[in-house]
Amino acid sequence: MSSNNQQKQPTVEDILQAHQKIKPYIHQTPIITCTSLNQLVGADLYFKCENFQKGGSFKSRGAANAILSLNKEQKKNGVGTHSSGNHGGALARMAQIFQIPSYIIMPYDAPNSKKRSVQNYGGKIIECGATITDREGTLEKTRKDTGCEIVHPYNDYRVIKGQGTIALEIYQQIQKPLDFIITPVGGGGLLSGILIASKAISPSTKVIAAEPFLARDAYLSLISGKVEPQFPPKTIADGIRANLGDKTFEIIKEKCDGILLVEEQEIVDATNLIWQRMKIIVEPTSATVLAAVIKNKELFKGKSVALVLTGGNTDIEYKPKL
Amino acid sequence: MSSNNQQKQPTVEDILQAHQKIKPYIHQTPIITCTSLNQLVGADLYFKCENFQKGGSFKSRGAANAILSLNKEQKKNGVGTHSSGNHGGALARMAQIFQIPSYIIMPYDAPNSKKRSVQNYGGKIIECGATITDREGTLEKTRKDTGCEIVHPYNDYRVIKGQGTIALEIYQQIQKPLDFIITPVGGGGLLSGILIASKAISPSTKVIAAEPFLARDAYLSLISGKVEPQFPPKTIADGIRANLGDKTFEIIKEKCDGILLVEEQEIVDATNLIWQRMKIIVEPTSATVLAAVIKNKELFKGKSVALVLTGGNTDIEYKPKL
Repeated sequence: MSSNNQQKQPTVEDILQAHQKIKPYIHQTPIITCTSLNQLVGADLYFKCENFQKGGSFKSRGAANAILSLNKEQKKNGVGTHSSGNHGGALARMAQIFQIPSYIIMPYDAPNSKKRSVQNYGGKIIECGATITDREGTLEKTRKDTGCEIVHPYNDYRVIKGQGTIALEIYQQIQKPLDFIITPVGGGGLLSGILIASKAISPSTKVIAAEPFLARDAYLSLISGKVEPQFPPKTIADGIRANLGDKTFEIIKEKCDGILLVEEQEIVDATNLIWQRMKIIVEPTSATVLAAVIKNKELFKGKSVALVLTGGNTDIEYKPKL
Repeated sequence: MSSNNQQKQPTVEDILQAHQKIKPYIHQTPIITCTSLNQLVGADLYFKCENFQKGGSFKSRGAANAILSLNKEQKKNGVGTHSSGNHGGALARMAQIFQIPSYIIMPYDAPNSKKRSVQNYGGKIIECGATITDREGTLEKTRKDTGCEIVHPYNDYRVIKGQGTIALEIYQQIQKPLDFIITPVGGGGLLSGILIASKAISPSTKVIAAEPFLARDAYLSLISGKVEPQFPPKTIADGIRANLGDKTFEIIKEKCDGILLVEEQEIVDATNLIWQRMKIIVEPTSATVLAAVIKNKELFKGKSVALVLTGGNTDIEYKPKL
């Protein structure tokens, strides 16, 4: 499917090299702590704020590394991908920087903020249905029509290496041992990259994922031992409406310490806690990690926990009656 | 009116000493920059994020300094103030830390988030009408009833010194010369403190204020040469529905480089720009400073501008249909 021709699973060295390569194009995002949330859960929480990343999400890391890995010939006809939003915006942004076309296959019900982001960066949106099958079919057709290079949103080692750079920064920025890193899981690109880097740097730190109950395909995949299909895309955590790929599943199966499921209302409540207590905008996908910690306080009690807030692109608007 | 018995206008030395005193009780808040907003206005903007301050606003600085300035006898019967919100929450928070009672006079139409904040910190809310006369009357009655020490929200040198510590941090954190510091003006406590510190540290930096057209009493006071009364409290910038006091007016009249007026819709638009581009929650009062810069681009073109985002306590809620 993907024209990614690198077949070797990445190592932490690959991720370190990716970091050097992408640094001019990304932010080192801050780590934020919040006394009142620490008190609420009884743990030391460190929020890695990828909502402040260029383009509003961590996806800029993987997209940057993917485009920087292409040769002149591969770049010629541009790049294409399917995305419920953030990867599309990130790829369009990097394509614009390198002045090549980008084709972004988006489900018709993707949030407006994410469509706007792709358009602002000069990406060409091609709408499709909401399932992974719809998306992949439309992407393959686009590839045949345009000759573009496909940069899969997660099942691509170039992308996985880029996302893994988050873990490098977490260990640089937090100057005490971490008991846990927790990140959302959708297609698994972020989780895979963090697993590779974290297990190399700090083997004793548990790396776990948060997943909505309504989209628990990764959870079930770890139980069944094979990639389970995507659930109907009903969760409000719109960034993780995808199933694992073969590359991400292989890494997650081997290294991941567990997946915690959260309900929709718990995601809503955690989103509000982050907005109201931390005064930062995250999208609901980001809040799954806090929801998982709140739901499982006994597991995290007294522990040091890094939580990856994946993005901040949500249709928020302040509309007072004037 | 105020029982503040310090009659000497503060100096930068007073503000430096206040900073040492209050440091254990406040955050050194971050400075954030935003490429897309810099491009939008054609200037280098440095946002001082007091929305991340303890209690959600800069008011924690003045409240901390005021309570830390009280002797045992003065603290005995607790503290009282009137406040549309943030000063009340800040004073209640510091009173809770020192285990003394706090009485907070609040207009009936204060935002729920601000009432909740006072209650969370154990403050006793006493409701009143929305004008300054209503507020001051109710506060004086409360003082007689309880014997509490009044900590006026702005017309109090202890408070002014605390707010001035923001300017110390701005000059420590921003490592290049500043052309402007811009801050909202309501009662003038923040502006006064910043004026004293900034003019001592960097006399060539212009310090200006942003004020809603619907609450332009400070603007008119500078023209008429006397404290003009509060306008009807109609601006959405609920943090600045107050007129100047005699102490703040004296400082502002002598040192302030000008006041820029902004319309309500401009405040709304600037609030949305900050939420959507910077991914941080600020209250509309904070956005007046960006609105003023956007409205007067020619004045700020190519300049280095520090903008004080005063607070983040707003009734924001994420409510998806589940």
